[in-house]
Amino acid sequence: MTVHQYQPRVYHSALGSFTPVLRIASGDTVVTTTVDAAGQDSSGTKVTSGPNPQTGPFYVEGAEPGDVLAVRFDRLWPNRRTGWSSSALAPNVVDPSFVTEMPSRQKSPRAQWELDLEKGTGTLVEPETRPRRLILPLRPMLGCFGVAPPNRQTISSDTSGTYGGNMDYRGFVQGVTVYFPVFSPGGLLFVGDGHAVQGDGEITGTGVETSFDVAFTAKLLKGKEIGWPRAENEEYIMTIGNARPLDQALQHATSEMLRWLLKEFCLDTRLTHILLGQCVEYDIGNVFDPAYTVVCRLNNRWIRLLK
Amino acid sequence: MTVHQYQPRVYHSALGSFTPVLRIASGDTVVTTTVDAAGQDSSGTKVTSGPNPQTGPFYVEGAEPGDVLAVRFDRLWPNRRTGWSSSALAPNVVDPSFVTEMPSRQKSPRAQWELDLEKGTGTLVEPETRPRRLILPLRPMLGCFGVAPPNRQTISSDTSGTYGGNMDYRGFVQGVTVYFPVFSPGGLLFVGDGHAVQGDGEITGTGVETSFDVAFTAKLLKGKEIGWPRAENEEYIMTIGNARPLDQALQHATSEMLRWLLKEFCLDTRLTHILLGQCVEYDIGNVFDPAYTVVCRLNNRWIRLLK
Amino acid sequence: MTVHQYQPRVYHSALGSFTPVLRIASGDTVVTTTVDAAGQDSSGTKVTSGPNPQTGPFYVEGAEPGDVLAVRFDRLWPNRRTGWSSSALAPNVVDPSFVTEMPSRQKSPRAQWELDLEKGTGTLVEPETRPRRLILPLRPMLGCFGVAPPNRQTISSDTSGTYGGNMDYRGFVQGVTVYFPVFSPGGLLFVGDGHAVQGDGEITGTGVETSFDVAFTAKLLKGKEIGWPRAENEEYIMTIGNARPLDQALQHATSEMLRWLLKEFCLDTRLTHILLGQCVEYDIGNVFDPAYTVVCRLNNRWIRLLK
Amino acid sequence: MTVHQYQPRVYHSALGSFTPVLRIASGDTVVTTTVDAAGQDSSGTKVTSGPNPQTGPFYVEGAEPGDVLAVRFDRLWPNRRTGWSSSALAPNVVDPSFVTEMPSRQKSPRAQWELDLEKGTGTLVEPETRPRRLILPLRPMLGCFGVAPPNRQTISSDTSGTYGGNMDYRGFVQGVTVYFPVFSPGGLLFVGDGHAVQGDGEITGTGVETSFDVAFTAKLLKGKEIGWPRAENEEYIMTIGNARPLDQALQHATSEMLRWLLKEFCLDTRLTHILLGQCVEYDIGNVFDPAYTVVCRLNNRWIRLLK
Repeated sequence: MTVHQYQPRVYHSALGSFTPVLRIASGDTVVTTTVDAAGQDSSGTKVTSGPNPQTGPFYVEGAEPGDVLAVRFDRLWPNRRTGWSSSALAPNVVDPSFVTEMPSRQKSPRAQWELDLEKGTGTLVEPETRPRRLILPLRPMLGCFGVAPPNRQTISSDTSGTYGGNMDYRGFVQGVTVYFPVFSPGGLLFVGDGHAVQGDGEITGTGVETSFDVAFTAKLLKGKEIGWPRAENEEYIMTIGNARPLDQALQHATSEMLRWLLKEFCLDTRLTHILLGQCVEYDIGNVFDPAYTVVCRLNNRWIRLLK
Repeated sequence: MTVHQYQPRVYHSALGSFTPVLRIASGDTVVTTTVDAAGQDSSGTKVTSGPNPQTGPFYVEGAEPGDVLAVRFDRLWPNRRTGWSSSALAPNVVDPSFVTEMPSRQKSPRAQWELDLEKGTGTLVEPETRPRRLILPLRPMLGCFGVAPPNRQTISSDTSGTYGGNMDYRGFVQGVTVYFPVFSPGGLLFVGDGHAVQGDGEITGTGVETSFDVAFTAKLLKGKEIGWPRAENEEYIMTIGNARPLDQALQHATSEMLRWLLKEFCLDTRLTHILLGQCVEYDIGNVFDPAYTVVCRLNNRWIRLLK
Repeated sequence: MTVHQYQPRVYHSALGSFTPVLRIASGDTVVTTTVDAAGQDSSGTKVTSGPNPQTGPFYVEGAEPGDVLAVRFDRLWPNRRTGWSSSALAPNVVDPSFVTEMPSRQKSPRAQWELDLEKGTGTLVEPETRPRRLILPLRPMLGCFGVAPPNRQTISSDTSGTYGGNMDYRGFVQGVTVYFPVFSPGGLLFVGDGHAVQGDGEITGTGVETSFDVAFTAKLLKGKEIGWPRAENEEYIMTIGNARPLDQALQHATSEMLRWLLKEFCLDTRLTHILLGQCVEYDIGNVFDPAYTVVCRLNNRWIRLLK
Repeated sequence: MTVHQYQPRVYHSALGSFTPVLRIASGDTVVTTTVDAAGQDSSGTKVTSGPNPQTGPFYVEGAEPGDVLAVRFDRLWPNRRTGWSSSALAPNVVDPSFVTEMPSRQKSPRAQWELDLEKGTGTLVEPETRPRRLILPLRPMLGCFGVAPPNRQTISSDTSGTYGGNMDYRGFVQGVTVYFPVFSPGGLLFVGDGHAVQGDGEITGTGVETSFDVAFTAKLLKGKEIGWPRAENEEYIMTIGNARPLDQALQHATSEMLRWLLKEFCLDTRLTHILLGQCVEYDIGNVFDPAYTVVCRLNNRWIRLLK
């Protein structure tokens, strides 16, 4: 169970079978950093270009197609005191007839935020708000992370799929474990695109974008097959579908939840349907990226009860 | 501020310009009952047929097209000790290739629930679960309610639109105030389709269906124009979009939220976009009915801060 | 086989169980007229208001729920020498980010057309085009027609469903027979919304709108069940799906085509799938109305070959 | 204007920045072959594996990002006498509730076709049809072709985007010129996935799949920017949108058509909208692949008239 310190020297704005930056064993922890979506590091210096530059890939020894990688986020926290966000909603999240009433995204200057990393708050400083300031509780999360996609594809970090990618789901915070199918030897794990805060849907196309300290522990689960990313926190099991329209993302996530409950928790089929019908929860990850994201969640107390 | 007791003698499985069952003044309260989605009343007797038989319509004196009706749910609670739910997910909520792995909806007998109205719990009794029982906290809500649709249409209570209808949103519980545009003289308010519990999306096509005691207070807001249903509880303001696909329902709800914040709360445009980007929350009401439902929510403390 | 002359005195901007204007027997022909989408008759006089005022309903003796009405359009031809069209595309047919580059629909004056009913051409006269005029061949079609919807609903003539309605499909021309499921006693047939010309998708929200002479022959087919409108011309059989998004309209139309081929033409299942895979044709009826329309077509020579 | 004979020795089941197999000058012609979707060549020998193995990439000297490649298909014709197709529709093209009535794709053996390359016909030989045989006219087309995607991505040949790819549009036949944006030096052109026949939508997931003789002439258009693939034949100009749902593919194609007419043909804006409203035609390329394809077409005689 080694702890690796890794200081990135290279970034990728795509997920693919790039040369690994570090080889780790199952159970190892990596302590590293990510730059913000525009390539700025902890000192605010632009060290690479976007979109969503990724730190990695990390090669997990022994990982082969058909396995699963479990990635636990031990720490996800901004490592600088500034963040920025877009100040205009994306045109695709409003009625087509309403688009002309929207401010231009090109002409709307970025909003600027001041992050208090000790108190865990973000304050909007540009535009300034008076008489009271807009101070939000931080909920730091990773927007884009995942493994090398299937069939040796190299896919831009602006979109997502079965391999993860730019899911922009506000529930991917410290303490969550995310499971990915392995498509390439070593799995090839990428992390990036930290958001200090983000609303559902990432409807302006950004969270409060900033650079992050990231620590994660990767475990290899041999011979465990999954179709879409899965995740767990203390309370919930979650499945993630990435596609357009939202309807299809929801179908992917719901099908994966059924597979999980039926094949691994071995719940009774009729009971599983009854339970999901009354207890399922859905979150909208993003409605901005080329593929939208829907998360299907179930409180694990119901599962514990029925097993 | 009269309190009217109304015992229904007629039900409608559509929303439209039917003969009012009661005329009330703005500010009046109506205490009534609803039958379940299959037409069964508090004694379990089938007194009418579905889908979603509606109690009403209630005519609010003075309501004219271009006004708004505010309906506060003072009480929403089951009035019998049994409920039922479907025991099979709808085929449209899973991947098309997964449908053949699903149990048949036709052949899956309804699940039966026992409701403890004092403790506020629902227990699954058929199928029985062992060794432990599945006991869910009740969260009674109305699935289908609204006003007469525009242009003197009469529209089945299985779908929804700008006038409300079958939205099947689990957030429509006791204590919430819902706002509807008025399209017909008197507004013509309908209520029905109580669910003792329901998951997001109503993915089996039912909640735990049962008959309800319903008390609501209706207020007329003259000359206040809205495009889609709006709602408020102590913490949130909400806008509701009804359409397919989910993407379009989300567009309706988001556009209506922008109109609310900009035109009535008179927030600054750029600030509104920044705020929504980081603080908006979306709920998926239903993905089962002909029109899906997405709810756009904003915690009212951010608005109070910025006004 | 009576031929009825019917001169409309009343119009409906919805399809529903209105009082029949005429009762006819199966096999009878009705010779009547329709006003344009804005309510203007053959003299250009506005005699009613839109949207899509319908002539009818016509009651077919003996028609009961579970039957099918076959409506053959014997004549569909403009009955005045002017037409008009919108001069701006709908915002929902272009990319959300492109909407701001579009002319305003509100501020774009209607285009005006001159119809030569003998030559069968339409000439754009406002805006005038120079040095050459834009002269299109007429292909007169009905945009909105159908029967009373199921469950005694009354639904605006701006949308469509299993009962027909505002399908705006350019293939509904003279010589075509359209089949509707019967939901109400008498079927209650409506016709309206003539277009002298129309592109696929009705992407400006109008064809070349004008008043029409309409003659149709209605036949009752007892006990023949269909799920969606079907149609036939000399070359093709067609099924029509109305829904959003287009994907769902296409699913409705394709399912109905399969039902037709398998249950009524009794083709072999595997052969039907092979045949459709290589010979199916799809048309996009409209992408403007609340429900979009997709038509699934198959050349009947393949069916004749395989029966 | 050199004519290059190229006999493939390597195939790619993705489009990306692979090592060019041949460098050609603008105006040169390449005469080559493609294997079928399963990797079988003109002798029926499996020489590589799918999906949709691509011949290429061909490097066009001087092509840089921001240019356009025009690819004219001089010859597209099967080079063997057998083809195969799926014999079961995809579950996503029918109603979710209809999926269980469909034959299993896994269990449905491929259909086999005999191709008469001189007469230009394809005969279904397995299953055999009696008393008459199903003989279709050949309309040979390429299902998957395009250039290297933007941002040095490598994307599977099972999907499509702005760079082309697996569009499966039955209009891409001999004689058509297709225009692609250049994203990588040399453009890097790929061709593959020949279909001897195909219906709209490729709803079984295949055309009549076979190996092809392909001859094309590539021309470099410097500094001409386009957003999506465009195409031309003798009668039509066409724009191609690839996305899900169909609605979004249609939006891409329509926006690109507007850009073409307004910026390059320099038509008047209002006139362009009026013209498209009454004369546009849409084709559904495929509704099977991860990204669906919609083609927007306009008869060029209207443009010639108005220029």
